[in-house]
Amino acid sequence: MQAVIDYLKANQERFVTELKEYLRFASVSAQSQHKPDLAACADWLVHHCRQIGLTAEVRPTAGHPIVVAKTPRDPKSKKPHFMVYGHYDVQPVEPLALWETPPFDPVIKGDSIYARGSTDNKGQNFAHLKAVEAYLKTGTPLPCDLTFVIEGEEEVGSANLDKFLKANKPELKCAAVVISDTGMPSPKHPALTYALRGIIAFEIKLHGPARDLHSGVFGGAIENPAMALSQLLAQLRDKNGRVTIPGFYDDIVPLSKFERQQAALYPLKDAALKKLLGSPQLFGERGFTATEQRSARPTFEINGLTSGYQGEGSKTIVPSWASAKITCRLVPNQKPEHVRKIVCAHLKKICPPTVRLEIAAGHGAEAYLVSPTSPHAQAALRALQSAFGCPPILMREGGSIPIVNQFKKILGADSLLLGLGLPDDNAHSPNEKFNLKCFSKGQLMSAHLWQELAG
Amino acid sequence: MQAVIDYLKANQERFVTELKEYLRFASVSAQSQHKPDLAACADWLVHHCRQIGLTAEVRPTAGHPIVVAKTPRDPKSKKPHFMVYGHYDVQPVEPLALWETPPFDPVIKGDSIYARGSTDNKGQNFAHLKAVEAYLKTGTPLPCDLTFVIEGEEEVGSANLDKFLKANKPELKCAAVVISDTGMPSPKHPALTYALRGIIAFEIKLHGPARDLHSGVFGGAIENPAMALSQLLAQLRDKNGRVTIPGFYDDIVPLSKFERQQAALYPLKDAALKKLLGSPQLFGERGFTATEQRSARPTFEINGLTSGYQGEGSKTIVPSWASAKITCRLVPNQKPEHVRKIVCAHLKKICPPTVRLEIAAGHGAEAYLVSPTSPHAQAALRALQSAFGCPPILMREGGSIPIVNQFKKILGADSLLLGLGLPDDNAHSPNEKFNLKCFSKGQLMSAHLWQELAG
Repeated sequence: MQAVIDYLKANQERFVTELKEYLRFASVSAQSQHKPDLAACADWLVHHCRQIGLTAEVRPTAGHPIVVAKTPRDPKSKKPHFMVYGHYDVQPVEPLALWETPPFDPVIKGDSIYARGSTDNKGQNFAHLKAVEAYLKTGTPLPCDLTFVIEGEEEVGSANLDKFLKANKPELKCAAVVISDTGMPSPKHPALTYALRGIIAFEIKLHGPARDLHSGVFGGAIENPAMALSQLLAQLRDKNGRVTIPGFYDDIVPLSKFERQQAALYPLKDAALKKLLGSPQLFGERGFTATEQRSARPTFEINGLTSGYQGEGSKTIVPSWASAKITCRLVPNQKPEHVRKIVCAHLKKICPPTVRLEIAAGHGAEAYLVSPTSPHAQAALRALQSAFGCPPILMREGGSIPIVNQFKKILGADSLLLGLGLPDDNAHSPNEKFNLKCFSKGQLMSAHLWQELAG
Repeated sequence: MQAVIDYLKANQERFVTELKEYLRFASVSAQSQHKPDLAACADWLVHHCRQIGLTAEVRPTAGHPIVVAKTPRDPKSKKPHFMVYGHYDVQPVEPLALWETPPFDPVIKGDSIYARGSTDNKGQNFAHLKAVEAYLKTGTPLPCDLTFVIEGEEEVGSANLDKFLKANKPELKCAAVVISDTGMPSPKHPALTYALRGIIAFEIKLHGPARDLHSGVFGGAIENPAMALSQLLAQLRDKNGRVTIPGFYDDIVPLSKFERQQAALYPLKDAALKKLLGSPQLFGERGFTATEQRSARPTFEINGLTSGYQGEGSKTIVPSWASAKITCRLVPNQKPEHVRKIVCAHLKKICPPTVRLEIAAGHGAEAYLVSPTSPHAQAALRALQSAFGCPPILMREGGSIPIVNQFKKILGADSLLLGLGLPDDNAHSPNEKFNLKCFSKGQLMSAHLWQELAG
């Protein structure tokens, strides 16, 4: 084991150079013009996995391909089998003007590497590859068989992963799935995430006049779709920060006393959170702490608004239409398709007859919850303690990793969420970064993890 | 007078040929590459005015020149003096692909002449020149002195007209200004426009978190600026279509019974308006007809909404900011700067502390109103009746023509708006046209007008 630790220590510089190569691919899965970048990124990844001693291949899907890489297998051994899941696709970079350095030209500043995809998820997942490389290159026996599944559609809902898991069930059957695609509160607070929020995405479009109209000639006698949209959306959240859609909160299992105590241990307090976000003040559902609001409570979030003229100066029109992109975060026991149904029904009910409502459904995913006291979870907590040298915390996270539900349903495997991202990593935002200490300690955590899980 | 009428009748074909010549100039004031076309057009116009017996000259400005043409003056006579205002500049032609025939190659199809500038404003203004030609060429004494002021910057905001009016106040002092640059509802509904709406433009921007945030990681504990904007805007109009800003309606002079009777004569009825606009249904301030709503009532109109992600698919963010472009149409006696003040004060008052409000002021213009029962207006109505052979209607228009306020303020002169454009003339759009019956009847109206105004 010391050889593995020494190898990791000795090769940090090269690992960062390799990570930079990986980050140069503009693998934006949401934008069709980047399809060739995703293909090239998958090819690079396969090549890299083979270089470090894994067998690896690109598996085509109806969308972007999946990279599968495996540790060498002894068919006679009865080692436990674990999957390491990650994704090589990234979020769009817009608004590009807010990036201080180009998103696909990785730069080291201070302790961090800056690039789109650095924390979400290329850097985090790469730490596991480097830990395995250390075992393989030092000839240290791995106590487990490992299969890396690194997909290219996580940021657009993992549409083809489900089919892939079903089609390759015997090959992928495993004791648990290890995922580093979440966060830890600070470099001194390594964490095991035991719950995630689910999500539904959709777009509302209100159609008014057949074309943009002269606001002088016609304004006053015709509905303004941008006003109709504002009035529709405004009704959906009350002054206490509660979503007003009937039935929205019905299926939620209340937080236990133990869970609320754990949430209170989360080190980022309100004043620090407010400063981090740079907002005039915090705001959320009354009766819950900010930590609970953003991890254990559902939301109705407007992700984008579009209507009429957006250029320089003014244009005197009544816009023909107005639209809003929406996502709702869901918590354990809320069913995405049920929530989508009640949201759509409510929108139809309250939409005025002056406009025509169109709702386009997007992706959906259930929330996730595992027992924080299982043997695997305890093993993971010990690996975190060994790597980071301080006690790990148990936390819920607000984001969604829809595929953890698929791993449970299709493969029967729980997921161990061992996030290496920091709260100021700017995931999904301009100037995304990944802390290089989290990168190196993440490798160490991964190296310990296989011993703890097998032992 | 019969000689004038006969002359007009006998020369229609030549007048159309001359109008075609005038329309061939690509006098697009907004596009600097057309500067020589504007200069050539002004020169042609001066030459043409001299040919028909006027004294005429090009007056340079800091922008495109103004053409000034005058009927021969007898310094001893005490005839009343009227100005005829028009403009020889035209709107850009883009999108060119949508034109069925080239915009600067005039073509007669059916009853109409098709070319950019045909209705707005070359054709309409040319009708007045032809009426004056008929007087001068038949030796019929004109009962008034006339000065044509034909500018080249109307489509770009008449930036230099103000200065020109102030510098030439004694020369331009007149009893009224006659303008044919508006519309009439149909060939059977000649119209005098006695009021126009004013305008204020501004932009609201709500700032939330310092950057776009991951809606999974932070959503629920932070204000969503797009929701805050929706809730802010939603409060500004009630279910009855009334603007809820305190004091918004305070200064409005109510429509008189006579005015409401006149508005009821407007031939475009609700069903036809709904069809024209292609909207699910009409909507406006309760208690007023659609004609009144879009011409005699103020509005709060959202011209554009912008926030967060607007690209393909979804992006799971809490946007950093949300903005709305707004224009309010104003009606006579509402002061633009006062309305701007109360709107801004109300926005500041109702803006929640979870976001920071920024308001950027845009342009403003007062509404316009002349008495529909003044002797000049009555004279104009009689001229319309004589020329078109059917009773004219008195109407308000919902758009704004800022220069009429300048004529009032600088020269003390009311404007008589005698529009010859039809609703389907495509002003500012591809395939602009001008109805040749409106052209010939407009000449006749102008010929009668000078008798009626002087009489």
